[in-house]
Amino acid sequence: MQRVACLVSYDGTNFSGYQVQPRKRTVQLELERALTKLHKGQEIKVTSSGRTDAGVHAIGQVIHFDTSLQIPLERWPNAFNACLPNDIHIHEVRSVEPQFHARFDTVGKEYRYRMLLKKQGDVFRRHYTHTIERDINMERMKCAAQYLVGTHDFSSFCAANTDVTDKVREVTAIELWKDRDEVIFSFKGSGFLYNMVRIMVGTLLEVGYGNLSSEGVAQILAAQDRTKASKTAPAQGLYLWKVDYPNLVFHHNKNNES
Amino acid sequence: MQRVACLVSYDGTNFSGYQVQPRKRTVQLELERALTKLHKGQEIKVTSSGRTDAGVHAIGQVIHFDTSLQIPLERWPNAFNACLPNDIHIHEVRSVEPQFHARFDTVGKEYRYRMLLKKQGDVFRRHYTHTIERDINMERMKCAAQYLVGTHDFSSFCAANTDVTDKVREVTAIELWKDRDEVIFSFKGSGFLYNMVRIMVGTLLEVGYGNLSSEGVAQILAAQDRTKASKTAPAQGLYLWKVDYPNLVFHHNKNNES
Repeated sequence: MQRVACLVSYDGTNFSGYQVQPRKRTVQLELERALTKLHKGQEIKVTSSGRTDAGVHAIGQVIHFDTSLQIPLERWPNAFNACLPNDIHIHEVRSVEPQFHARFDTVGKEYRYRMLLKKQGDVFRRHYTHTIERDINMERMKCAAQYLVGTHDFSSFCAANTDVTDKVREVTAIELWKDRDEVIFSFKGSGFLYNMVRIMVGTLLEVGYGNLSSEGVAQILAAQDRTKASKTAPAQGLYLWKVDYPNLVFHHNKNNES
Repeated sequence: MQRVACLVSYDGTNFSGYQVQPRKRTVQLELERALTKLHKGQEIKVTSSGRTDAGVHAIGQVIHFDTSLQIPLERWPNAFNACLPNDIHIHEVRSVEPQFHARFDTVGKEYRYRMLLKKQGDVFRRHYTHTIERDINMERMKCAAQYLVGTHDFSSFCAANTDVTDKVREVTAIELWKDRDEVIFSFKGSGFLYNMVRIMVGTLLEVGYGNLSSEGVAQILAAQDRTKASKTAPAQGLYLWKVDYPNLVFHHNKNNES
């Protein structure tokens, strides 16, 4: 038995999120279905770094599973991809220690959010960006974002329907930049609460519009109350970009850095 | 009665092409369905600059139709878009002379083709680019492309199943350039035969791979024989980019120039 870890990307558009749910098409379902096929019917369970919501995309999701197949590692991606639908792609498969755990071993994650700055509809990016039809002030958003960096109780930025009780998380960096006709947000941290990135984006957007001051963001954070923050930004702009582990670096991720 | 012309973009992924066909979802069907709804059930027929195949996209398709509705022109796009599915978008609606004809009045067209230069699958652009997994030589392709510019009989670059007998067309310019991890081809001409752009792309690609010389392209052109040219490049990389008319310029198109 060999434990392997995979770097996976998926287009979240046609999935009801990552995690298996009855009668829904999910990423986990497709991954496990493909692996069970590769293993001649033997049921294979997959563990990911964490779930993603319906419509949310992944560039650098990480999963692990155990296999008894004698496939050379370099052949694994092609074999696995051949059994997967076109909206999931395995970039790299690595051998890991038997105690490696895709969820518990994460030491950091990066999410990105893409906003399209256009007044007109872009039919090609409707599933991949959130369209902003008004002017936004980048400098105000950059300033406000700094209030969210650090170790804080992020209760104001967590969906109400969660079981998690400890809402203290460390956000290590928030950056935003223009990329042609898009604004890209990058959020790096030790971990994120349910909907946390999308609520931070929604709130920073209000700052960008001029409806909220930078200091207002600090007050929302201090209130520890979800009702004080702004609307959750739509799922289709969000990407799980990168997951960090102490002893595992995917080569493909390195190529991806820009 | 007022004749109007519209600048339309569509994501061709989920359409069986532009033209109405029995029991298929087509762009024309959705446009006419939306207009009939806007006109309270009155059947409205739409004429386009030309059809596009299944999976082919449009950035700047042009259509015309006649309407008796008393909607101010500036309100037309929102009214029309409200009745359309999300994969079609009306950018601009212009009043034109009653004798304007979206097909017969065209004096030129531009198509673009997007190729993704990656060895790994990109799940986000699988419907919007053609993925090239091998190295291609840009200079060789640029050189070969110049043999196709001019007024020629393009029989070698026309799908066999066409009714068109006169296969002489004028290609006014072919350009290609790198844009990050993509190669973009632009083809400008008076008009194009069925599959002509995709066969030219497929043939230039063989030059890029080193399987065909630049002069080989000239020989294929001279042969006037479809079997001499290379495979038709896949539909999903192709975009109807711009349609030119003597007396009609869409403002949105101007903004789109790069």
